[in-house]
Amino acid sequence: MRNVAIVGIGQTPVGELWEKSIRHLGHDAVVAAMHDAGIETADALYVGNMLSGELAGQEHLATLIADFVGLRGIEAAKVEAACASGAAALRVGVMAVASGQADVVIVAGVEKMTDTPIDETTAGLALAADQEYEVAEGATFVALNAMLMQRYMHEYGVSHRDFAPFPINAHANARNNPFAMFRSPITLDKYEKATVIAPPINILDSSPVCDGAAAVVLVPLERAREFGRHKRIVRVAASVTATDTIAIHDRRDPLFLEAAYLSSQRAYAQAGLGPEDIDLFELHDAFSIMSVLSLEACGFAPRGRGIELGQSGAITLGGKIPITTMGGLKARGHPVGATGIYQVVEAVQQLRGEAGANQLPHAHVAMTQNIGGSGATIITHILVGEE
Amino acid sequence: MRNVAIVGIGQTPVGELWEKSIRHLGHDAVVAAMHDAGIETADALYVGNMLSGELAGQEHLATLIADFVGLRGIEAAKVEAACASGAAALRVGVMAVASGQADVVIVAGVEKMTDTPIDETTAGLALAADQEYEVAEGATFVALNAMLMQRYMHEYGVSHRDFAPFPINAHANARNNPFAMFRSPITLDKYEKATVIAPPINILDSSPVCDGAAAVVLVPLERAREFGRHKRIVRVAASVTATDTIAIHDRRDPLFLEAAYLSSQRAYAQAGLGPEDIDLFELHDAFSIMSVLSLEACGFAPRGRGIELGQSGAITLGGKIPITTMGGLKARGHPVGATGIYQVVEAVQQLRGEAGANQLPHAHVAMTQNIGGSGATIITHILVGEE
Repeated sequence: MRNVAIVGIGQTPVGELWEKSIRHLGHDAVVAAMHDAGIETADALYVGNMLSGELAGQEHLATLIADFVGLRGIEAAKVEAACASGAAALRVGVMAVASGQADVVIVAGVEKMTDTPIDETTAGLALAADQEYEVAEGATFVALNAMLMQRYMHEYGVSHRDFAPFPINAHANARNNPFAMFRSPITLDKYEKATVIAPPINILDSSPVCDGAAAVVLVPLERAREFGRHKRIVRVAASVTATDTIAIHDRRDPLFLEAAYLSSQRAYAQAGLGPEDIDLFELHDAFSIMSVLSLEACGFAPRGRGIELGQSGAITLGGKIPITTMGGLKARGHPVGATGIYQVVEAVQQLRGEAGANQLPHAHVAMTQNIGGSGATIITHILVGEE
Repeated sequence: MRNVAIVGIGQTPVGELWEKSIRHLGHDAVVAAMHDAGIETADALYVGNMLSGELAGQEHLATLIADFVGLRGIEAAKVEAACASGAAALRVGVMAVASGQADVVIVAGVEKMTDTPIDETTAGLALAADQEYEVAEGATFVALNAMLMQRYMHEYGVSHRDFAPFPINAHANARNNPFAMFRSPITLDKYEKATVIAPPINILDSSPVCDGAAAVVLVPLERAREFGRHKRIVRVAASVTATDTIAIHDRRDPLFLEAAYLSSQRAYAQAGLGPEDIDLFELHDAFSIMSVLSLEACGFAPRGRGIELGQSGAITLGGKIPITTMGGLKARGHPVGATGIYQVVEAVQQLRGEAGANQLPHAHVAMTQNIGGSGATIITHILVGEE
C-alpha cells in the first residue's frame, strides 16, 4: 500500500450561486485544484455529492464534470454517503492511489441546493434519515438534531446559551475566509434572540442551505515533489469510515456518536497519534450539538463536558483544540456533499501556512471529520504536513 | 497492490417486487452472498445504486443496508455512475482490498424502480443523460438509443430485423435462469411485430424496468481458500473505468463507443489477455444496438460487422463468443444500479461451473461490461477461474 499526498486544493465561494449550474461549480473547483497542483490531466475524478439527482436534475455527475473540465476518457464516479459524501469520495481517491490503480486522482465535492424551493431542499436533506422509520413519522433533519440537543441539555443540565461559543467562534473565523458565506460576526445577545427553528435549535445553531464545490489532487507520496510548488507536502496519515444505525431511536445511546468514536480511534491507530497530537480539528458543525458530541466521541472531552471546550475558549484559534478554523459548516457554509472536501482544503491551508489571518502558529497535524445523517456515517481523516 | 478474489455471490429474483422495500432487496442479496462465502462479518459494504433518492425516497442507502443486515459499524458508501453504478461500486471494492484498506468487502447492486409511476421512473432514467444539453430538448433515454440504432442502420445498410438474434438469444438463455424476469422464449415473428417505442426501437429491443439486487464478496486472493467451499476461486484479473462525453452529439463518432474501446483495451492489458481469450462476455444489452456497438468497440468484430455475430450464432451458448448467458439485461432484467453486479454474479456462476443448463463447457475467462448513459461511463472487468 502506497502512502498518499495532497498536492492541490481548490474551492469556489460558498453561497447562493444562482448564476452557476452544478457542472460549472464542479468545473471551477476542479480547475482551481489542478492549477494549484500544476497538472493538466489526471487518471480519475471522484465526486462527492448527495443531491444532484433530486435538486439539480442530474445523476451521472462525475462523468459530466470530467468531460466538462476537458478530461474526457478518464475514470469517473460519484460517491454518496449523505452529508459525508465529500469525505467518502476522498476515501475512494485515497484507495485508488494507495492500491496503485491510479497515480493522479482528483476528488471533488459538489452541491447545488438553492435553485429549488426550500421545501424541496428540506425534503432532499431528509433523504439522509431513515425514510420508513423516521421521515414517514414526520421528522425533518433539523427536528432529529433538535431532539439530540434537548436530550443533551436534559442529561447534563446545561442551558441553550451554553452552546453559543460554537457558532460565535465559527462566525469569528469565517470573517477572514474570502470563500465563506457568512463573514459577519455574531454576539451572545444575537444568538439568544435568534429565530427558533425546531426547539431548542435556532437559526444560529444551524448551518445554511447553500451551493459550493471544492477539490483536492492526490498523488503517491513518493512522487509528491513533482507537483505544485508548495513548501509543505500534506500526507494523508489516516482515512477511516465507520457507521451506526441511521434511525436515532435504534442507537445504543443517542448522545454518544459511536461511529465518531470508532472512526477516530481507528484513525488515531492508523496515524500512530492521539487526540493530544491534533493541532486543529475541522469538525462537522451542521448543528451546534454535533460539534459537542463529536468532540466528546473523539476523545477531546469526557462525556457531557464537550460543552466546556466552548466556554473555556479551547476551540478558538488561540485555544487548545481549535475547530472550524475557517468558519466551519455554520459560517463558511454547508453545501452538503461538498463539505467534506472543504474541510480538507481548509486543513491543507493551515498545514501549508496559507490560512492568512487565521493561520495557526503550530499547525502540523490536522483532523477532519465529516458526518452523514445525524451520526450514521462518520469519516475521519488525519493529515500531516511534511517539510 | 494485492490481487483480489470473488469468494461469494448472491442475488434476488428480478421483477416487479412490490412486496420488498429497497432495504429488503439489499438485505436479501447481501445475506445470500455472505452465506455463499461463509462469512458472518465484513470490513466494508459498497452499494451500487442510481435512483434510490428519486424512486425509493432514500439516500444514505449503503449505511442503511449495512445496519439492516447486522453489520452496524462497518464502512459503507453508495457509488453512482448511472446504469454503470454496480460495476463502479465493484471497482471501489476492488481498490479497497487491493490497497490493503480492507480484507473482506461486500459489494452490492440494488435498485427499486417499480414502486413509482412509469413517467417518474422514465424521468429518473433520463438523469443519466445530460440535463442541459439533451433532456431539456425532450430526449428520453430510449430516444437517444433509438437515434443510435437508426444511424447504425443507415450507415451500414442493415435492417431492423437483423438485430433480432440479440433479444432472441437473451430470452433463450433466461429460460434456464430461475432469477430472470422473462423466462419465455421469443421468435423472429414476435420481434418483428412488437410494439414500437421510439422508432426503430421496439419493446423487444428494450430491457425492462424492474427491481432487483445482487452482491459479491471480495477478499485478497492469497486468503481466498479460507472462504466458501467452491472448487474454483475467481480472480479479478482486470478492473477498468473509462468515460466519454455524456451528450451524444458531442462525441467524436456516435457509432463508436470510445469508452468501451478504452476500457476494454486497458482491461486486456491489465489481464495480459485479448478478445480471443474471452470465453463469455456479459455485455450491457440495455437496448439491442448497445450489444452490437459494445462487441465492435471491444474487438470482437470490425466496425459495422458486430451485427453479423448475431446472424452467425456466434453469440449463443454454443458460439464463438457467448453473450448474456443467463439472459442479459433484456431477459434477466435491468434493475439499473444492480445490473453490473448481476453480470459479475452470472460470470462467476459460469466460471465455477454452477450455471446449470446454460453452463459453458470451457468457461475459464469471463468479461463483464457495464454501461452508464448511452455510452458515457463504461466499466470492464475480466474474471479468471482458478483451480
